[in-house]
Amino acid sequence: MSCGDSNTIREGDNVLLFLDDRRTYLVKAEYRRFHTHKGFIDLGELIGREYGTKIKSSLDVEFVAFKPTLRDYVFKSSRGTQIIYPKDIALIITFMGIHSGSRVVEAGTGTGALTTALAYYVKPDGHVYSYEIREEFIEVATRNLKRAGLLEYVDIKNRDVTEGIEERDVDAVILDMATPWLVVPHAYEALRGSGVFASFSPTIDQVVKTVEALKENGFKAVETIECLMRRMRVERGRTRPETLMTGHTGYITFARKALRT
Amino acid sequence: MSCGDSNTIREGDNVLLFLDDRRTYLVKAEYRRFHTHKGFIDLGELIGREYGTKIKSSLDVEFVAFKPTLRDYVFKSSRGTQIIYPKDIALIITFMGIHSGSRVVEAGTGTGALTTALAYYVKPDGHVYSYEIREEFIEVATRNLKRAGLLEYVDIKNRDVTEGIEERDVDAVILDMATPWLVVPHAYEALRGSGVFASFSPTIDQVVKTVEALKENGFKAVETIECLMRRMRVERGRTRPETLMTGHTGYITFARKALRT
Amino acid sequence: MSCGDSNTIREGDNVLLFLDDRRTYLVKAEYRRFHTHKGFIDLGELIGREYGTKIKSSLDVEFVAFKPTLRDYVFKSSRGTQIIYPKDIALIITFMGIHSGSRVVEAGTGTGALTTALAYYVKPDGHVYSYEIREEFIEVATRNLKRAGLLEYVDIKNRDVTEGIEERDVDAVILDMATPWLVVPHAYEALRGSGVFASFSPTIDQVVKTVEALKENGFKAVETIECLMRRMRVERGRTRPETLMTGHTGYITFARKALRT
Amino acid sequence: MSCGDSNTIREGDNVLLFLDDRRTYLVKAEYRRFHTHKGFIDLGELIGREYGTKIKSSLDVEFVAFKPTLRDYVFKSSRGTQIIYPKDIALIITFMGIHSGSRVVEAGTGTGALTTALAYYVKPDGHVYSYEIREEFIEVATRNLKRAGLLEYVDIKNRDVTEGIEERDVDAVILDMATPWLVVPHAYEALRGSGVFASFSPTIDQVVKTVEALKENGFKAVETIECLMRRMRVERGRTRPETLMTGHTGYITFARKALRT
Repeated sequence: MSCGDSNTIREGDNVLLFLDDRRTYLVKAEYRRFHTHKGFIDLGELIGREYGTKIKSSLDVEFVAFKPTLRDYVFKSSRGTQIIYPKDIALIITFMGIHSGSRVVEAGTGTGALTTALAYYVKPDGHVYSYEIREEFIEVATRNLKRAGLLEYVDIKNRDVTEGIEERDVDAVILDMATPWLVVPHAYEALRGSGVFASFSPTIDQVVKTVEALKENGFKAVETIECLMRRMRVERGRTRPETLMTGHTGYITFARKALRT
Repeated sequence: MSCGDSNTIREGDNVLLFLDDRRTYLVKAEYRRFHTHKGFIDLGELIGREYGTKIKSSLDVEFVAFKPTLRDYVFKSSRGTQIIYPKDIALIITFMGIHSGSRVVEAGTGTGALTTALAYYVKPDGHVYSYEIREEFIEVATRNLKRAGLLEYVDIKNRDVTEGIEERDVDAVILDMATPWLVVPHAYEALRGSGVFASFSPTIDQVVKTVEALKENGFKAVETIECLMRRMRVERGRTRPETLMTGHTGYITFARKALRT
Repeated sequence: MSCGDSNTIREGDNVLLFLDDRRTYLVKAEYRRFHTHKGFIDLGELIGREYGTKIKSSLDVEFVAFKPTLRDYVFKSSRGTQIIYPKDIALIITFMGIHSGSRVVEAGTGTGALTTALAYYVKPDGHVYSYEIREEFIEVATRNLKRAGLLEYVDIKNRDVTEGIEERDVDAVILDMATPWLVVPHAYEALRGSGVFASFSPTIDQVVKTVEALKENGFKAVETIECLMRRMRVERGRTRPETLMTGHTGYITFARKALRT
Repeated sequence: MSCGDSNTIREGDNVLLFLDDRRTYLVKAEYRRFHTHKGFIDLGELIGREYGTKIKSSLDVEFVAFKPTLRDYVFKSSRGTQIIYPKDIALIITFMGIHSGSRVVEAGTGTGALTTALAYYVKPDGHVYSYEIREEFIEVATRNLKRAGLLEYVDIKNRDVTEGIEERDVDAVILDMATPWLVVPHAYEALRGSGVFASFSPTIDQVVKTVEALKENGFKAVETIECLMRRMRVERGRTRPETLMTGHTGYITFARKALRT
């Protein structure tokens, strides 16, 4: 996620230490020891080696030093709240077509998981304007964005988005907040013609109110989906879906701005 | 999807004429009539107007002239084969972190639906190398990519990818083909350390063979998922999930390249 | 489903002619020809043979003469309306514990699909009281119940169940109708202490109103579920879930009557 | 589940003490104290009262004394192994049409959860023959069946079902075991013509082998399904599916015996 094209780990770079699917650690390559239940790792040894290299802990357990992907940053950013999931972020980004150069408004910032994904896709020429009324989240989100090297593509604004959006002619507005319907008229004002809207909500009642607000405020192509993701345990002779599954995260509502005339 | 920042429809631009969710038409803004079941539309009238504008047909039925999104191009590209779905493309792109600047190998090209999405996200500095052995698809894919304005970011190669991948140090390899396991060793050679792999397969047997090949060939963080998407019919007092649903498209297997030493 | 224990097909017995999963025919064993796209079958030839026997059509195509199961009767009864599905009937019957001897109230009867299943399980000592306000359905339901040999276990009552239930101390009340919440107080009166309630509704709004009415009217153990069923296409080397799937039939709400004191 | 028609709780009867959805206790009405985290309950006080009555603990917390349903017995029987779920039992029983009078073979018995459901539906005139090779389970299953008052309808046989089934002309054979395909030829011999077969398996590989064995051994109407059940949290203004969900229990394969001639 750094801008450099090199595949060599340099001092200060992020590294995802991978033991297995459940045990991964997002660390910086620097001259210090990192302690795990499987012994410590000299992170300094990683400097100058290639991403994907293997490294052994003091207890001779092998880790792989992966280059963190967007999904790693998102996962590590959402610890503690886990409100929006990578699968939902994937659908939001791709169905809206957010890409390099897009100008995007988001609310609320939360811990910055979705913000990180948006910044990753709009860079280097686009920008994310992220509204967050709760001050305590702004620091967390800023730290997460900084770690991912994406802070320069984001303005976190400590404002109440239900009172208005300052930007105009943006390509996309994305809401992950308790009362998205209150923001729909502001989203209409902020978007360029044909601009795209998305809202993520856990409850059906939020969805109904938001869809009604969209239809009353000049949006078209309004649709609501939910996405279920199931992991498979793949092993010859014993392949089966995983027993545990997240049954619900939230519904995603999409719409596009039609001009009034 | 065009490079220009303007929101004005110019001659030759693509426009998505939207009547309702089931009836959308991807057309070019040019001086000709476009015939629909709801009367004809003078496409020339769109030129100079803003995206999102409304236009009436000769039978006085209102259409909205949206700027096509990635998802529109993908949908319109996959007509007839419909092998890979936007929801799966979304997970592949985002979970792999494919973004502006990525160098990506894909096989097979097919009608170019996934190729279109990859090109959309790697531009302007990245590139897609897409292998396709069936000549009849190359023309279709080329036409679809050209329409989306993305052909310059793609090399379609009429070669058998099971015999090898020519590129080296690529960021990602994505397979949507009948025998992905035969390509796994080539994918390993082509990827940079920590590079990401994904394979989309409809059957469980393909998944098992691919996962085995990945584990035998030095890949780590191997995981397989499936994604179910359900639409909601949202209307106050009558909200419910849609009756019809696609029950299965395919499984997606992800992995990352660990270096051998 | 007949009372006889014999496995021999007798004149007048029902037979399910099975060609493949999509082509099955519920017929009577009698001296006449039955015409299919694969030629005609002399149904009289079945008389005296055992259930499970094979029979060839005039075009030499093989059919199997199965003894119809409950599921066959339910499927054949719901043609045309297809409101309630075997999977939902299965959960309703079994989760409520409806069995031989149960006294059950149902509304509305509709085409008698659920009524058939209820009668099948309460016989020989129990009884079903089925309310239906729409006269046109009563004839259809009666015909379907008669064909399944279950009419004697059912009273179809042409009355409006929202105005009251006449029975008392019943074991179960099951509603498959547009306004179940209006019947909840009557259901409470009709049920014995600890009696079970179930309601099947396609929309979320119906569910919310019904759950509220249940909680206000002395019911406990209120729970709402939905059930998704997916078919697998099983073939060595090509096993996969079916592409087409019913994404939604309805929600089922269960509750139990707690006494007020 | 007792045979008596009375709704009065008598000494020795089973009672389900219900506090909330997660805290239910299956007890006997007898002169002793039952201790819970919410204080103790004098179970003797229940004797002579009606099912559905409310009772307060020593800490003044209210419980409801429900009459246990089949589902309660199944849930309480499967604690510890939780291999087969009520939703799967529901589909097996109802899709096979198992009812009062059916003669059924089952293997293996396990803790008797499915056996309990089968006995409940075949009584009073039918019978369940349940094979179990692991002696340690037989005692558990016997205790569970006895508690549910259903032991007289079941023969638990400490035999290896892969070596043969002793019964003939049974209506149904149901397998919940590691190697169902080994039992398919025996199931064919044991079933009457048109008799029904079901097998429950967690892995796809078991399913493939079983389906192959069924097709090779004269079964028709072979189909495999999986069932996903999701709970809803219903509350006006906050209705949503539950976050946690069981993603997989197993696949169910059904088939019917066609005669060879």
